[in-house]
Amino acid sequence: MSETMGVLGPKGTHSEAAASYLNEQLPQRCELVTVPDLFACLQDVEEGRLDTALVPVENSLEGAINITLDTLARSESLEVMRELIWPVHNQLMAKCDGAAIKRIFSHPQPISQCRAYLQQHYPQAEIVKVASTARAAELVAAEPASSGWAAICTKRAGELTGLSTVAAEIQDNMANCTRFFQVRRRGTGAECLPKEKVLIICQIDGQKAGALYDVLKEFAQRGINMTRIESRPARTELGAYIFFFDLEYTAAVDVLQESIAAVAKKSIWLKNLGTFPVLIVE
Amino acid sequence: MSETMGVLGPKGTHSEAAASYLNEQLPQRCELVTVPDLFACLQDVEEGRLDTALVPVENSLEGAINITLDTLARSESLEVMRELIWPVHNQLMAKCDGAAIKRIFSHPQPISQCRAYLQQHYPQAEIVKVASTARAAELVAAEPASSGWAAICTKRAGELTGLSTVAAEIQDNMANCTRFFQVRRRGTGAECLPKEKVLIICQIDGQKAGALYDVLKEFAQRGINMTRIESRPARTELGAYIFFFDLEYTAAVDVLQESIAAVAKKSIWLKNLGTFPVLIVE
Repeated sequence: MSETMGVLGPKGTHSEAAASYLNEQLPQRCELVTVPDLFACLQDVEEGRLDTALVPVENSLEGAINITLDTLARSESLEVMRELIWPVHNQLMAKCDGAAIKRIFSHPQPISQCRAYLQQHYPQAEIVKVASTARAAELVAAEPASSGWAAICTKRAGELTGLSTVAAEIQDNMANCTRFFQVRRRGTGAECLPKEKVLIICQIDGQKAGALYDVLKEFAQRGINMTRIESRPARTELGAYIFFFDLEYTAAVDVLQESIAAVAKKSIWLKNLGTFPVLIVE
Repeated sequence: MSETMGVLGPKGTHSEAAASYLNEQLPQRCELVTVPDLFACLQDVEEGRLDTALVPVENSLEGAINITLDTLARSESLEVMRELIWPVHNQLMAKCDGAAIKRIFSHPQPISQCRAYLQQHYPQAEIVKVASTARAAELVAAEPASSGWAAICTKRAGELTGLSTVAAEIQDNMANCTRFFQVRRRGTGAECLPKEKVLIICQIDGQKAGALYDVLKEFAQRGINMTRIESRPARTELGAYIFFFDLEYTAAVDVLQESIAAVAKKSIWLKNLGTFPVLIVE
């Protein structure tokens, strides 16, 4: 029986497109299962209803996907098994002509990513935020062309629902990618290779001056390259933070482990969320 | 003629409640002007249509308000003149009884802040995200009690629209505050005292290992306390970031200036967004 991989649905979301691509690359295909929200998707993995899930963690224009970071930080059993870097292509799709568009539907993230385009071309249009780009396409497809409704969505979602492209590549910046993590429960499945990154989460005592500097020193002085730092509220009080550190994996495993152990000593708590390969899609 | 202060409206939002409070404390009252979105509010200040604006920058449960950070980072003329720390009290308000609630409206941020409460008490209710807590109250007020609609909003918004409290203080964590910045154009108005904080924004070359560590060293080695670090995408490519550093103001101004100058040398660009007092509301 094939493994299941959860992904934010419905069909035609950026997440589902990325999961379909990843699935093609795997030696053993998974069964893709669409789940209506990210929190539920991660919980389904944690509680064993799904084997793995592919969830977005960061977009190059809009930044961190907070629900993913917060859920990973609070889970005892999830680990990252693979990272996928996926190029995002947003299209404006409708049944009507561009000039007739009065109302534009999409997920809040693509709406932000296309802010400049929308201001320039559709300053008068009403912008409506919905749960996913695929849902936006469905809503627009259910109305007649005369409604003047349009969706910002993937080409795939528009085509699945019978919309036509009004404008392609409308995001403000062509360097638009989304990072995804494929996650599973700890101790399930084989090691994914090659090892390229390590994800560490810890809480540092923010009341101490220079606390973060002291922690980064443990990596920097050992030549461990940190490719990303992200802070999220610890949710205990204003001013208390959790930090996510993305580290480059190094063949000098002893040194890497030593730096993580040293950071753990300086932290209130620390979790290693996994060592994993990175797959970059052109 | 009194100065104008922009704030996210309509009346009854958390922002508007905070601005009304702040206005009471000022030696010279401002005229409050509600603006429908944060980006427009900051642009109105930048382009001189408003004298100042009070905008949320961070919530203790949900983290940074990205649109505020991104707009400040990209503006050439805005500066922070004051910080306000405001306690957030969310209420569930409706015309009907708690048991009859089927659909709950609010802004995405309070919805996140009340996630655990909603899952425990209203797992079956449909959650609908709207532009503000005040808008949520308006929508619920326009329907009969039999609709089963409810809003998560401020007590004030519910009362303005004739709703009753179903449950008070429903946020997941009692330590729920929002930080606001009052912003203005550089060089307008008097200095705000006492000086308590400095906000620095810079872009660091993320390709260099230890680059962030090298920057934090300039603060740590001079005893400058950094109370907050936040990263946002530089929007040029995945992996390029802008950093926001909140520094404690110190009487040793020379040392502070020296540390900022040293960081500027190590950055692609750096902006000082202002030195300002912090007002904490109990």
